[in-house]
Amino acid sequence: MDAIEVIVAKRDGRELTTAQIDWVIDAYTRGEVAHEQMSALAMAILLNGMDRREIAEWTQAMIRSGERMDWSMLDRPTADKHSTGGVGDKITLPLAPLVAACGAYVPQLSGRGLGHTGGTLDKLESIPGWRASLSNEEMLGVLRGAGAVICAAGTGLAPADKKLYALRDVTGTVESIPLIASSIMSKKIAEGTGSLVLDVKVGSGAFMKTVERARELAETMVALGSDAGVRTVALLTAMDRPLGLAVGNALEVEESVEVLAGGGPSDVVELTVRLAREMLEAAGITGKDPGQALKDGSAMDAWRRMISAQGGDPDAVLPRAAETMTVDVPESGVLTRLDAYAVGLAAWRLGAGRARQEDPVSFGAGITLHAKPGDLVRAGQPLMTLHADETARFARALEALEGGYAVGAAGEEQLPLIIDRIV
Amino acid sequence: MDAIEVIVAKRDGRELTTAQIDWVIDAYTRGEVAHEQMSALAMAILLNGMDRREIAEWTQAMIRSGERMDWSMLDRPTADKHSTGGVGDKITLPLAPLVAACGAYVPQLSGRGLGHTGGTLDKLESIPGWRASLSNEEMLGVLRGAGAVICAAGTGLAPADKKLYALRDVTGTVESIPLIASSIMSKKIAEGTGSLVLDVKVGSGAFMKTVERARELAETMVALGSDAGVRTVALLTAMDRPLGLAVGNALEVEESVEVLAGGGPSDVVELTVRLAREMLEAAGITGKDPGQALKDGSAMDAWRRMISAQGGDPDAVLPRAAETMTVDVPESGVLTRLDAYAVGLAAWRLGAGRARQEDPVSFGAGITLHAKPGDLVRAGQPLMTLHADETARFARALEALEGGYAVGAAGEEQLPLIIDRIV
Repeated sequence: MDAIEVIVAKRDGRELTTAQIDWVIDAYTRGEVAHEQMSALAMAILLNGMDRREIAEWTQAMIRSGERMDWSMLDRPTADKHSTGGVGDKITLPLAPLVAACGAYVPQLSGRGLGHTGGTLDKLESIPGWRASLSNEEMLGVLRGAGAVICAAGTGLAPADKKLYALRDVTGTVESIPLIASSIMSKKIAEGTGSLVLDVKVGSGAFMKTVERARELAETMVALGSDAGVRTVALLTAMDRPLGLAVGNALEVEESVEVLAGGGPSDVVELTVRLAREMLEAAGITGKDPGQALKDGSAMDAWRRMISAQGGDPDAVLPRAAETMTVDVPESGVLTRLDAYAVGLAAWRLGAGRARQEDPVSFGAGITLHAKPGDLVRAGQPLMTLHADETARFARALEALEGGYAVGAAGEEQLPLIIDRIV
Repeated sequence: MDAIEVIVAKRDGRELTTAQIDWVIDAYTRGEVAHEQMSALAMAILLNGMDRREIAEWTQAMIRSGERMDWSMLDRPTADKHSTGGVGDKITLPLAPLVAACGAYVPQLSGRGLGHTGGTLDKLESIPGWRASLSNEEMLGVLRGAGAVICAAGTGLAPADKKLYALRDVTGTVESIPLIASSIMSKKIAEGTGSLVLDVKVGSGAFMKTVERARELAETMVALGSDAGVRTVALLTAMDRPLGLAVGNALEVEESVEVLAGGGPSDVVELTVRLAREMLEAAGITGKDPGQALKDGSAMDAWRRMISAQGGDPDAVLPRAAETMTVDVPESGVLTRLDAYAVGLAAWRLGAGRARQEDPVSFGAGITLHAKPGDLVRAGQPLMTLHADETARFARALEALEGGYAVGAAGEEQLPLIIDRIV
């Protein structure tokens, strides 16, 4: 077998055989298939697609490229959640301890920010002392002690996906549903969770801009999970506007702690509780009320245990950006639009995200919102506050926000927070 | 500008802008655009196409990546010919000195064998002492002395094309008409010829398998040449069966010398004379009869001058393969089919071609045919003779020939030798 044979088959619109898929993933992991060959294949897959069998075999081959974790020694069911990424999407932070407080183990491998979307690990690293990298033994220890663990995936997990993901990022081959679905699901299946809830974001701030594309991705991933013996369910949720009122690493940790304390913005609370219910149901845990666990302090307790177990100080003062700037409401009326992508891009430019993989993020940078679409606003009121380490960053953030919000009489139609449920 | 922007534009089916094309070719030549990015772009071009403007600008950008030769100091017009490659296609060997004998200068940059198709330089190197690599000054000297020169392109000519060609070869992105046309024409335009005749092969032994694809390639190349001020004409010619009776390096040199001596197989003579007429007409030379120049020895004289000027001995005994094997006619009747690809693949496996770019070729290896389609043949007569340096090579060559010829009552339709003319 050689790489050209596999590339040409997909280029010419044929299905890849099981043997071709197994060989090309293994040979790429070993370095026998060159990056330039895999990128040509990725482009052919993006343009000509893969069917369900091909995607399933591609995913299994990526799982087999590395280790597969196993939590069967634990005495409670495991549940995990994955979000396809959005602006202000800090849901994992309150969700993991909340579900742990309700009786499941939550072993969550998370990632870093990508482009205008934030990353869970970047957010948690704004807590002084908190460590993202754990050995498998440490991960098990945190899980047993706190019920939930959020950490970086080790290098042994789906190395084929790691290599391919970095390649797709620089070759314009990210936006392929078969490649996105197999990338996410290979990691989640290898992670060894027994049940999985997928939060597939839809809208300007998400990778899937339309409900149709998001539905296709969700259906593909649910089928992959179910075929691999993981109880999987997906929600399609709104990402046309930011989630909550905080966008940026430490700012989102603060908002998450508010939610764990029984407060917080209503959309963040609603989505957190709904996802917790889905995770508990998928894990087969009944008779628990996540809403109650937010109010009675048990979720907060799990949070504090989880943060402490990874070296973090849950009582520490979080980093703050040195400079702030207020953007005012231009005219009185209804806030009809607050575009998730514009806000995400502005927060990125303020320093909350990274331009290159190796760049640091600013923990304090980001945006706090003072109104959400549908709210009545008055001219001159603050609409949002920008946070950055240097005032020089404000100009390009303001550019990103231009046209990103509107005040008027009648609002544009916003997506419902929870659009659909796919099983 | 960055590579991802250019890749995504073509991936999403948009036209590349002039600025995008200029930038990506220049940046790839300088190494700023990585191989894996260019291969993703090449696949997107293969699958989504380029329009005439894009192809023209792509070609011009590749020309600008290196030097452009200039023969305006010469006192006679220049003419060149390019074949898209086939099996037994030795036409350049008699053609270049023939056209020189008729009054044009023929500055021909040629290539090596690729896959099952032979390469002009490999063929000429079977002549003891002959050198393919010349400096620009040496090239001019041979041209002035012999009227024709056939040599390897220097590294300064269209370096972007050289890099891209090697990349396409290993990434399944060879079969794209925009990329093939721009590759050929960037070299031919940079070579500085005033007129150009393209021999676009059609059939199993050619890269273009159908008349439609060949016509599209020919029309694209003629437009590129004409737009660049080169008088360009294309012939579509048959490559469903081999050209002539000899396939292999030294074997084809021998057949070429027969043609220069006024003999040789009728199809080789017909195509050589027709292409010579086209080159002379494109160069504006009238009143010369190429058929006469083959008979009166003036083409042979030019050949001998050309070979000697590049260090070759025109009287040397050519290398012969140590082993031969005869394939007999299986039954009496008409030879209804002799597939060019099967014969080319067999000759390749006998050692006439190379598996990898750095491999040597066997000068003596190849196939001599004793009948062509349409000929009456008798059971037990020799159909072809295989030549190789080791007998071990015969088995896989015979495999390649299986089903590649047929004897029967009524023949399959063969393509006319000259199918069409595109101006």
